[in-house]
Amino acid sequence: MNTFNRQEFASDNYAGTCPEALHWFLEANASGHEPAYGDDRWTQRSTDMLRKLFDIECDVYFVFNGTAANSLALASLCQSYHSVICTPVAHIETDECGGPEFFSNGSKLLVAENTSDAARLGKLTPDAVHTLVTKRTDIHYPRPKVVSITQATEMGTVYSVDEVSAISQMARKHQLKVHMDGARFANAVAHLGCSPADVTWRAGVDVLCFGGTKNGLPIGEAVVFFDRQLSEDFAWRVKQAGQLASKMRFISAPWVGLLENDVWLHNARHANAMAQRLHQGLCQLPGVMCIHTPEANGVFAQLPAKTVDAMQARGWKFYQFIAGGGCRFMCAWDTTEASVDAFLADMHTELAR
Amino acid sequence: MNTFNRQEFASDNYAGTCPEALHWFLEANASGHEPAYGDDRWTQRSTDMLRKLFDIECDVYFVFNGTAANSLALASLCQSYHSVICTPVAHIETDECGGPEFFSNGSKLLVAENTSDAARLGKLTPDAVHTLVTKRTDIHYPRPKVVSITQATEMGTVYSVDEVSAISQMARKHQLKVHMDGARFANAVAHLGCSPADVTWRAGVDVLCFGGTKNGLPIGEAVVFFDRQLSEDFAWRVKQAGQLASKMRFISAPWVGLLENDVWLHNARHANAMAQRLHQGLCQLPGVMCIHTPEANGVFAQLPAKTVDAMQARGWKFYQFIAGGGCRFMCAWDTTEASVDAFLADMHTELAR
Amino acid sequence: MNTFNRQEFASDNYAGTCPEALHWFLEANASGHEPAYGDDRWTQRSTDMLRKLFDIECDVYFVFNGTAANSLALASLCQSYHSVICTPVAHIETDECGGPEFFSNGSKLLVAENTSDAARLGKLTPDAVHTLVTKRTDIHYPRPKVVSITQATEMGTVYSVDEVSAISQMARKHQLKVHMDGARFANAVAHLGCSPADVTWRAGVDVLCFGGTKNGLPIGEAVVFFDRQLSEDFAWRVKQAGQLASKMRFISAPWVGLLENDVWLHNARHANAMAQRLHQGLCQLPGVMCIHTPEANGVFAQLPAKTVDAMQARGWKFYQFIAGGGCRFMCAWDTTEASVDAFLADMHTELAR
Amino acid sequence: MNTFNRQEFASDNYAGTCPEALHWFLEANASGHEPAYGDDRWTQRSTDMLRKLFDIECDVYFVFNGTAANSLALASLCQSYHSVICTPVAHIETDECGGPEFFSNGSKLLVAENTSDAARLGKLTPDAVHTLVTKRTDIHYPRPKVVSITQATEMGTVYSVDEVSAISQMARKHQLKVHMDGARFANAVAHLGCSPADVTWRAGVDVLCFGGTKNGLPIGEAVVFFDRQLSEDFAWRVKQAGQLASKMRFISAPWVGLLENDVWLHNARHANAMAQRLHQGLCQLPGVMCIHTPEANGVFAQLPAKTVDAMQARGWKFYQFIAGGGCRFMCAWDTTEASVDAFLADMHTELAR
Repeated sequence: MNTFNRQEFASDNYAGTCPEALHWFLEANASGHEPAYGDDRWTQRSTDMLRKLFDIECDVYFVFNGTAANSLALASLCQSYHSVICTPVAHIETDECGGPEFFSNGSKLLVAENTSDAARLGKLTPDAVHTLVTKRTDIHYPRPKVVSITQATEMGTVYSVDEVSAISQMARKHQLKVHMDGARFANAVAHLGCSPADVTWRAGVDVLCFGGTKNGLPIGEAVVFFDRQLSEDFAWRVKQAGQLASKMRFISAPWVGLLENDVWLHNARHANAMAQRLHQGLCQLPGVMCIHTPEANGVFAQLPAKTVDAMQARGWKFYQFIAGGGCRFMCAWDTTEASVDAFLADMHTELAR
Repeated sequence: MNTFNRQEFASDNYAGTCPEALHWFLEANASGHEPAYGDDRWTQRSTDMLRKLFDIECDVYFVFNGTAANSLALASLCQSYHSVICTPVAHIETDECGGPEFFSNGSKLLVAENTSDAARLGKLTPDAVHTLVTKRTDIHYPRPKVVSITQATEMGTVYSVDEVSAISQMARKHQLKVHMDGARFANAVAHLGCSPADVTWRAGVDVLCFGGTKNGLPIGEAVVFFDRQLSEDFAWRVKQAGQLASKMRFISAPWVGLLENDVWLHNARHANAMAQRLHQGLCQLPGVMCIHTPEANGVFAQLPAKTVDAMQARGWKFYQFIAGGGCRFMCAWDTTEASVDAFLADMHTELAR
Repeated sequence: MNTFNRQEFASDNYAGTCPEALHWFLEANASGHEPAYGDDRWTQRSTDMLRKLFDIECDVYFVFNGTAANSLALASLCQSYHSVICTPVAHIETDECGGPEFFSNGSKLLVAENTSDAARLGKLTPDAVHTLVTKRTDIHYPRPKVVSITQATEMGTVYSVDEVSAISQMARKHQLKVHMDGARFANAVAHLGCSPADVTWRAGVDVLCFGGTKNGLPIGEAVVFFDRQLSEDFAWRVKQAGQLASKMRFISAPWVGLLENDVWLHNARHANAMAQRLHQGLCQLPGVMCIHTPEANGVFAQLPAKTVDAMQARGWKFYQFIAGGGCRFMCAWDTTEASVDAFLADMHTELAR
Repeated sequence: MNTFNRQEFASDNYAGTCPEALHWFLEANASGHEPAYGDDRWTQRSTDMLRKLFDIECDVYFVFNGTAANSLALASLCQSYHSVICTPVAHIETDECGGPEFFSNGSKLLVAENTSDAARLGKLTPDAVHTLVTKRTDIHYPRPKVVSITQATEMGTVYSVDEVSAISQMARKHQLKVHMDGARFANAVAHLGCSPADVTWRAGVDVLCFGGTKNGLPIGEAVVFFDRQLSEDFAWRVKQAGQLASKMRFISAPWVGLLENDVWLHNARHANAMAQRLHQGLCQLPGVMCIHTPEANGVFAQLPAKTVDAMQARGWKFYQFIAGGGCRFMCAWDTTEASVDAFLADMHTELAR
């Protein structure tokens, strides 16, 4: 017999498939035989829906996961002797096991120095880009070619449209392309309340990796090229890199579920709201230091070390992103108010000991 | 409204997800939150089931597709300056867009010369391996390190246990590792009627890429290392190459469905039987030249060129593997007798014109 | 005490440094301190001389050897999921240990089928290019992006200006770039009697790897980009790939010696003339079958197997390029008439036994 | 007419070829024809001399430059999903344009945090190794596999035998291999006064890249494997990567010149002595802050910014390694006392203004 697990705050990828994505997964299966490798009706349909959503004739490629999406996108923007500018907390730097370096055959990630307030919030700034580009221009060091920003950031914050534009302008000034790691792009748009176009291509983004998995898909991300010249032969790149699904419909049909009726946005808004609820609850607890106000679906707070241990002993799962009590709590599309409240209640009990 | 498509013979990856795999996909989703990256119960369970199936403490890794499975397995067996021996029709040579070369950073595929009967049947022979290994031993040419065989072959034939053993013995003699591309491994075992262990590790195979997709999964293949020394740090390799699913349960739980009650074998037997039915029907049609008797789920026949055109005009989808009427017809786990018969009836009509 | 070795016919890279190259090597050393990495006067001077020689503002990069020159040039013309069309005897296919695949991170070499007379002479034809480009256009196979021809060929023949132009036109028709492996470019020009420009950029060649080593340098080849858009950031590529000499003057200064007073051409003419002498001598020997008339500095002939053994027993070094007595004899810039005659005399003796 | 340039302090690779190396270069040329690719007598001889020097049956490979030597050595010690621990000033990190990442197909360099005194001196410590190895052990981050130290360091300091041993012991504890970038290995040994074996394999070093270029060769470095199991098939790796010289004798014969009569050590001692002379001269100048006492052939000092400008205006070439007057002055095997004194005299004049 199957058991329904307690909801956790370790990662938004602990959640399963949302009902709308599942509906289309099943619908795609019900048709029996279907052409492979993307020549099916749902791949066409979801691609068209993404074009409409972004209000531009973009090129769309569905791949299996975020490491592949980011790595393939970056590899299409630079050669092995080029470099990619990002923050020290960027997922491409800290959690993809050298995927970008592997797919690009050696491109170096140049990490912006972590000094300003923006950096504390996990953000890159135009100044940091400028500093890294101008620091070295000789041939003994990989030449910067791409700026990569994560939206929403790994620190649960969101770049404003103006912030993205300012980075893009600096990038353009130095002939750099702009890549957006949008593993939680939906959460960022939900926070900003802008159109997806406004914070991507209209703000100078060349390629977006639009995350589906954390938003409610079982598997799958979309690589969206707003500058179609950059995606020349990208289909071959995807195939060679083992990222072309034969039964593509099972990746693409669930996207129809996300995109229809703005489910992607509703899912993200809900996750963001749960993060607010958790944040506000935590801030009221004595002994908890809230690090910054969440803008997306991640909550960051400093807990007493013994409380961290006690909560983990109670079976709660969450990450300590730094030693000494700094913790991250992620809310998903399905996190319930009850789960948040249960967590807060346990916290309250433990802090009172 | 969704329509149920006509079944095609273009590829066994036109079929959808089999009921048993779907059942476990849904079961996995029903549990709500679940640890990511394989720390879930179905990944453990399906891995244990594979170990039991192969009767050995093998290492198992689930990846997204066959190109990745083969490429990662080969890359773990050789370095960039090594080479892999295979047939000219090997999928790794003809249909993976240079995936093996990419993942290995440049390993060359050495194609066995296509002269013998075995070669006509899409098979490698010990002699062909010997010839390629001894042809060049200088440092100006990549050093052979791996033999790769496809089971069942791309020509719809199946290596006997003795044939696999003979190749493995020749491989061992030259210090080569043995890789088995088992995209249709189930179909081969169904034909042979042996145990999976007999035709793999007991016959000298080091690594098997066990295909799930064509056998009835939505997505996913298993890389099975029988020699566990060869899989050292393979988990890191998988992660870096963008092949580690965050919501792994959606890859691994459907495997439970395939492995429970030998569904994998039933699916394969059915596909093989449909291939036999199609083959026998074709052989009785005047003007059709059956190339060889199918052993797995693929049928190969020579059709009059105008019949090829006419059948395609009727909407039937299948591949011409060579110019001039040589055709391949693949049967899937869900191919019905009615579909086979409808195809044969149309053939009969067209050949009579 | 040093001994002066007998001259061999195994390879033109058995020869040492020609006096003019040595003169400038010593001259470059005599200046004491000199800026590194190419910021020296001889790098500038030899680059200017090459521009003058080719009558165009080309981009020139000096690298260490031919494998690197070819591999770097090809990698700058294609991505990992692209392919390079060449002959089955092309050095990049047979003798660079997968260098092109390594530097490009996996580009496949597509070998033209070996049927026509041109193929027998080691030449690619426009038709062979067309056949390979149009054979597959799907994303499951690497997309052709480059045609690579060797001038002079590995079979000692030379493409005429018209032949190169015809290949280039076919390449252009299919959006392919043209690479010329000119390890023995000097020998080809010496044979053709044309200007270097006529048989390169004016005939549609995009990049030439101009061989210096076999022409009389101790070490070093020049990569010459006629289309300067193709060499963007090539200096970074060279550096990353370990091909940027710190004491560059010792690579570039000897080039001054080759280029001054057309020494490169005189060296090549001499080697070609020795090949003619050897060829004519061999043709007159009973039992020797001359395969084709040499155009550059390589001689190909079929010898009785026992004569091959006997000559090798006498200490003569040369390569059997195929089993059964097919032999290659290379003449170098310094091969003397006396050496040719001594070889022929021994041949005469052995054949008479 | 050739002019003898003023000696500079920009880099020790501004110097030319030392007389003994040149002698053997000419000797090797005088023999006429010689087998290629290392089958010549000087390659054998210099290899034997290196084995004697290191008092062990090591494997020796000659390559063209330091970037290639380091990158190939590192690639032989780790896979793409592994990482290499080094200091932030390591040449492999700062000046090889991503060479190590390219040759290894993506291995990440993990830079030790720059806090301790040792780090200020450009040294790695066992503690820093331990911290980096234990910081992350999950599969989302490249697994450490190699420790790379530079001997002498990029800051002109030298690891003692005990320091190397301590690092190696920590490396062994964590199953890491030890690579030594010895671009200035000779200068380190000259300073230590120990045997080359004591500070390499007896101290736990697995692979040494022994620099010849800065020590007086025109071109060439030696990769020395003390653990011969690590060099399996390394000859193929070298060939594929474009690092196998066809006329190998011109790389290897000059090594005979360096190794005979301990020329390599005399050259290094002289360069070190000139660095001492320069350092002592600089320390006595008012306004100059000597950063640390040189142990090898590099001098580091802080100059008033206007003095830097003035000296450069006088035509002196040297590097500012950081902004604001921090300068590096390198002495070479041929740097004369007169050159040092001329530089100091100009400094004196400029500082007095």
